[in-house]
Amino acid sequence: MHKVSALFRRAMLAKALLPEVWTETLVPVCAVVGIVFSLFQWYVVSCVKLTADRSDLSSTEDGKNGHGDYLIEEEEGVNDHSVVAKCAEIQTAISEGATSFLFTEYKYVGVFMVFFAAIIFLFLGSVEGFSIKSQPCTYDKTRTCKPALATAVFSTISFVLGAVTSVLSGFLGMKIATYANARTTLEARRGVGKAFIVAFRSGAVMGFLLAANGLLVLYITINLFKIYYGDNWEGLFESITGYGLGGSSMALFGRVGGGIYTKAADVGADLVGKVERNIPEDDPRNPAVIADNVGDNVGDIAGMGSDLFGSYAESSCAALVVASISSFGINHDFTAMLFPLLISSMGILVCLITTLFATDISEIKAVKEIEPALKNQLIISTIIMTVGIALVSWIGLPSSFTIFNFGTQKVVKNWELFLCVAVGLWAGLIIGFVTEYYTSNAYSPVQDVADSCRTGAATNVIFGLALGYKSVIIPIFAIAVSIFVSFSFAAMYGVAVAALGMLSTIATGLAIDAYGPISDNAGGIAEMAGMSHRIRERTDALDAAGNTTAAIGKGFAIGSAALVSLALFGAFVSRAGIHKVDVLTPKVVIGLLVGAMLPYWFSAMTMKSVGSAALKMVEEVRRQFNTIPGLMEGTAKPDYATCVKISTDASIKEMIPPGCLVMLTPLIVGFFFGVETLSGVLAGSLISGVQIAISASNTGGAWDNAKKYIEAGASEHARSLGPKGSEPHKAAVIGDTIGDPLKDTSGPSLNILIKLMAVESLVFAPFFATHGGLLFRIFS
Amino acid sequence: MHKVSALFRRAMLAKALLPEVWTETLVPVCAVVGIVFSLFQWYVVSCVKLTADRSDLSSTEDGKNGHGDYLIEEEEGVNDHSVVAKCAEIQTAISEGATSFLFTEYKYVGVFMVFFAAIIFLFLGSVEGFSIKSQPCTYDKTRTCKPALATAVFSTISFVLGAVTSVLSGFLGMKIATYANARTTLEARRGVGKAFIVAFRSGAVMGFLLAANGLLVLYITINLFKIYYGDNWEGLFESITGYGLGGSSMALFGRVGGGIYTKAADVGADLVGKVERNIPEDDPRNPAVIADNVGDNVGDIAGMGSDLFGSYAESSCAALVVASISSFGINHDFTAMLFPLLISSMGILVCLITTLFATDISEIKAVKEIEPALKNQLIISTIIMTVGIALVSWIGLPSSFTIFNFGTQKVVKNWELFLCVAVGLWAGLIIGFVTEYYTSNAYSPVQDVADSCRTGAATNVIFGLALGYKSVIIPIFAIAVSIFVSFSFAAMYGVAVAALGMLSTIATGLAIDAYGPISDNAGGIAEMAGMSHRIRERTDALDAAGNTTAAIGKGFAIGSAALVSLALFGAFVSRAGIHKVDVLTPKVVIGLLVGAMLPYWFSAMTMKSVGSAALKMVEEVRRQFNTIPGLMEGTAKPDYATCVKISTDASIKEMIPPGCLVMLTPLIVGFFFGVETLSGVLAGSLISGVQIAISASNTGGAWDNAKKYIEAGASEHARSLGPKGSEPHKAAVIGDTIGDPLKDTSGPSLNILIKLMAVESLVFAPFFATHGGLLFRIFS
Repeated sequence: MHKVSALFRRAMLAKALLPEVWTETLVPVCAVVGIVFSLFQWYVVSCVKLTADRSDLSSTEDGKNGHGDYLIEEEEGVNDHSVVAKCAEIQTAISEGATSFLFTEYKYVGVFMVFFAAIIFLFLGSVEGFSIKSQPCTYDKTRTCKPALATAVFSTISFVLGAVTSVLSGFLGMKIATYANARTTLEARRGVGKAFIVAFRSGAVMGFLLAANGLLVLYITINLFKIYYGDNWEGLFESITGYGLGGSSMALFGRVGGGIYTKAADVGADLVGKVERNIPEDDPRNPAVIADNVGDNVGDIAGMGSDLFGSYAESSCAALVVASISSFGINHDFTAMLFPLLISSMGILVCLITTLFATDISEIKAVKEIEPALKNQLIISTIIMTVGIALVSWIGLPSSFTIFNFGTQKVVKNWELFLCVAVGLWAGLIIGFVTEYYTSNAYSPVQDVADSCRTGAATNVIFGLALGYKSVIIPIFAIAVSIFVSFSFAAMYGVAVAALGMLSTIATGLAIDAYGPISDNAGGIAEMAGMSHRIRERTDALDAAGNTTAAIGKGFAIGSAALVSLALFGAFVSRAGIHKVDVLTPKVVIGLLVGAMLPYWFSAMTMKSVGSAALKMVEEVRRQFNTIPGLMEGTAKPDYATCVKISTDASIKEMIPPGCLVMLTPLIVGFFFGVETLSGVLAGSLISGVQIAISASNTGGAWDNAKKYIEAGASEHARSLGPKGSEPHKAAVIGDTIGDPLKDTSGPSLNILIKLMAVESLVFAPFFATHGGLLFRIFS
Repeated sequence: MHKVSALFRRAMLAKALLPEVWTETLVPVCAVVGIVFSLFQWYVVSCVKLTADRSDLSSTEDGKNGHGDYLIEEEEGVNDHSVVAKCAEIQTAISEGATSFLFTEYKYVGVFMVFFAAIIFLFLGSVEGFSIKSQPCTYDKTRTCKPALATAVFSTISFVLGAVTSVLSGFLGMKIATYANARTTLEARRGVGKAFIVAFRSGAVMGFLLAANGLLVLYITINLFKIYYGDNWEGLFESITGYGLGGSSMALFGRVGGGIYTKAADVGADLVGKVERNIPEDDPRNPAVIADNVGDNVGDIAGMGSDLFGSYAESSCAALVVASISSFGINHDFTAMLFPLLISSMGILVCLITTLFATDISEIKAVKEIEPALKNQLIISTIIMTVGIALVSWIGLPSSFTIFNFGTQKVVKNWELFLCVAVGLWAGLIIGFVTEYYTSNAYSPVQDVADSCRTGAATNVIFGLALGYKSVIIPIFAIAVSIFVSFSFAAMYGVAVAALGMLSTIATGLAIDAYGPISDNAGGIAEMAGMSHRIRERTDALDAAGNTTAAIGKGFAIGSAALVSLALFGAFVSRAGIHKVDVLTPKVVIGLLVGAMLPYWFSAMTMKSVGSAALKMVEEVRRQFNTIPGLMEGTAKPDYATCVKISTDASIKEMIPPGCLVMLTPLIVGFFFGVETLSGVLAGSLISGVQIAISASNTGGAWDNAKKYIEAGASEHARSLGPKGSEPHKAAVIGDTIGDPLKDTSGPSLNILIKLMAVESLVFAPFFATHGGLLFRIFS
């Protein structure tokens, strides 16, 4: 007994090896390194000139990837100046469409942000009746903390900061992507390897900018808030949770709005173009083609960027808020306190090294090397990061410390916390591999789905749905193991750092993820600019790999969302003063049941939205084909702008109901039914949402690649199903169209549903604990 | 304080008004009344003669529904003896196919039954090392109970009894349905009203036989076991739980095997017949047509019968096992103890009266009256049953009593328990109505789905999936409210009786449910016997209503399964000696996550099975069309038997992996990971499975009826989408085919997954509590 309490006391007082001043320096330095690296990549991409003069050739010829390049089987069309001009024109159209949509979206979202900031201030301020007097702390009632009004003010500020950073992340991502797409097309004239490098570098610009930016803003905010809060870290980090809420609520609208936009345009364009008019994808005669390409940038790029930034911000906040009431916080060990930020800083350095493997160390010599190259990025970053985590855990943590565990303090060793972060990191890799296996057309699952197209669309859909369901199994086991290990070792702090571990290689993850839509756009531009069939084949090869990496990115996003929301859920429960969430109580069990239903409700809304918006698009496209003479013959230009406007209007209108569902549910449940029911709802939506999200994105990815498998006709089997236009191919196109809203709208938005409800509950926890459960109070 | 304990003491000693001897008489009398009523309905149905002489006409002309029937617009073909002979021949083929499949299935299932009975005996016997000495009771350690070996022996016996009763229920249902289908066809010659009555009466035969049979066997078993157990009711009713396990495990194989059978045949027949060869549904030239019709009887009839019998047996067992450790059991109040059986007895009487409304009081005068007539059955039975429950609660319960609530006793009033039963009953009605709204083509949701077929199969599938997701919302709220009310009033006993309330009108529910496949078969027989188009139109009208009632039946099955498995879960937790299932512990949270994944794994297996089996069927049907000369022209007969054999073999083979998943999961989790993780798994699969089950069956039902809506062309809107063979109709057929495995295989099997895992855990609880959690024991 005496030994245990000695251990406990030692654990409470131990400090990290790394001096505080080093921590204060290292974090911002790493962030700046990330930003500089990102800008360097941007510079390299910008060397591909979009102006039609000959100097662009020589400038890249001198560049790193230009010399002695035996990959280039042939350089075709590089002297065709009109093609370059056309590419530039199309890029401008796409970029303008995307910018205009994002500005419209941000206008609406801005109103929401102001409104919600007011709610945060009022609700949290009302906890102590807007009193400015200091009061007992949440966890340690013997100490005094800053007033609830301060929490209200600073939570509101950090909410706004999170929201702005999220918007910035999405917007910059979109700008980079629309800057890079035509450049990728032009580079494709010089070979698939060149085009790959441009697309990949552009992805890296986004990945590093986002990771470094998120880290830097969070770091600065903490240091600024510290001026007011001083040693009251509990209050400081409770206020910081607003940062996660801000990031995630913007991500919600970005994902949902962008998701509806992109799929309304895509489905609408395909239904008339491919099915009715029998013209190829991205044909310039199709009026919805610009909207479709804009969609990739606002949905898959801006939406994804905001989403992963939200995950990153939330997992950091969840870890920080738990740490502030653990020995790190009580003991005022700033280095250990900032362990989550140190992990992210290390992540930036590791990803930087990893990127060099793709851009400078190895080279793409054939189409079949693209997917392995991207996969290697994941493997390399995971292996190096494991060492990085070990290092950070060794110098950034005391050898032994205590972690708050629902009312008690638990003694944890630094190697145990290393295992928590590492298990999250490796679980991410496993999820990535499983996703690749189920969505890449190099393996049997997608080939089986393609084969089922022989008997028509119905069997294709049945097999595709079954594939999605089956693909859930291993990721869930991987997540379960991470949760078990991290939870057992270090309670909710462990789960939060496991999520951070999974997200520590976010820069690489985002790079390979953003690569997909850029390649997709590049293909579209090649088609629209009337470039040769060979160019299109090259961009198609890039795009097929991009489908898989997009699915992998979604896998990461979902896996990390599961861990993040569990950690946030734990922090909420602690902050709300609940000590157990017992399934054997009526309030919790109905919460679980209703919570598990929410992802279905949400998916019904988003899928229906895509369907309705697509129908509107179909009508407009049909109208243009029927009323504009010479459109089908290619002599007249379609009215792209109207289609862009339809997608914009529809997505803005349709994103409101699902947005309200997510934002209002925690408020309504917490206020009327209280924190116990709310904790049931959060747990229910978490365990149910993860499954639907994984199955939806893998089903969609598999259908997309089954179609691509038939189109590419790279094997005897694939050729027996093709070519384009054959009955099996038509069945595959139907599957692909069904998969669009599943994989790009409803599926990925579910991550945000589960995270956002959890972080919102965490921010409002003091309010619910004080004023919540109105309905049960009335009845009892 | 004194007042409370006096109340408590009074509650502990109070007895029910109804004397024990009356209870002992009333229950079997009601069961016998049900059986007699069922036999009477059978007799009436049998009056429609299937032999080709004129006497059949006069005999029904004399019958109740024959006189002065102005419904009959015309009687066509009634003098055509060859049609009658042909119908009889087809019926024999269907009946023989179904019998042969069920016998094959039962042979395999029999082996499993013997094997699993041995496991039950060995595992439960091992709890006390097969000692024959009496030992302390599970809940009250101060008293002595019968040895664990006795529990092992009697659990095994009741398992076998439950299994045999379940098999019998399914088999009799199939026999009745295959007896009635051709008779419905023949009656359709005399008008839609006549045909409706025959189909409905036949459904009633099954409903009453099954309800009464289940009640009677349970009653007799309890009384026989009582001879050994005497006053040790705790042990007695723990052993009785085997009855539920037996019933449900047979239902699993019935549902899965039958579900794969029916959909392999259906999908296979449609893919070649409708899509490739462009011949109508049920065309006698299609070699898979007999297998398709057999499938309706083994899947929708035998499978559904076993499923609902399982729910009934399990909810009774769950209520009884909780009651045995409440004041009813401690106080040895046999009337109150048998309250669940009294509710079911009352249910038989109420359903009897309700049936008369359809068969004798009102008449069907037009096609559009069919659906309301069936819906009225639900409304009437619910209203009368509410009074019945009030009566039973008044005379069958003490005015105040105590209910075991996870370690403590809770005082409950009889009117509170009335509310528990009533809330379940009415929640069932709400679920029924919502299901009807989302799956009937009389309302906008299905019409919207039909409308989306304009733009092809892809939008049809997107809208259909969204509809299914949306249809989950209200049923989940209804289930949540029932759980909250019943749980708050009377803990797990309340939830169990709420489930019984929902199932109390099971005879009516089954009647309208079985009516569907019978009408479907009747249509098939009409087509195959070459009867006129008008006859087919009449059976199609019956069938469209049947699709809706089938969906309603599935809604009931799922809703009751949710309540039942929660009650079983509660009983398991009590018996395993856990006092809380805290989401904030790693063991529980990983259980929840993995549990929520199981329905996806299971659905992936069953859907893939249907897909693969259907592909085999497609090959065989194609082979026959290609190799049998004159088949397409109708001059040669197809080889029906081979198709029947393919369906049989495929379903037997394919039902084993999902069966193992369900049966082994609780054993593996309980043995290796212990009761806490197992309780997480049970809760997770419950809250996730309910949602998928509801959405899958409603999506499938909606697609089926969207297709029927276009085919029937009853409105301007519907005609604008049709006729048969139009592009929208083709898209609708694709949706219908996708929906087949969702609504008839994977969806309804999920009820059994969640119930069966819970009841299995309950039966094995003492074993897990003693020997479980091996893995965690090794590591700690």
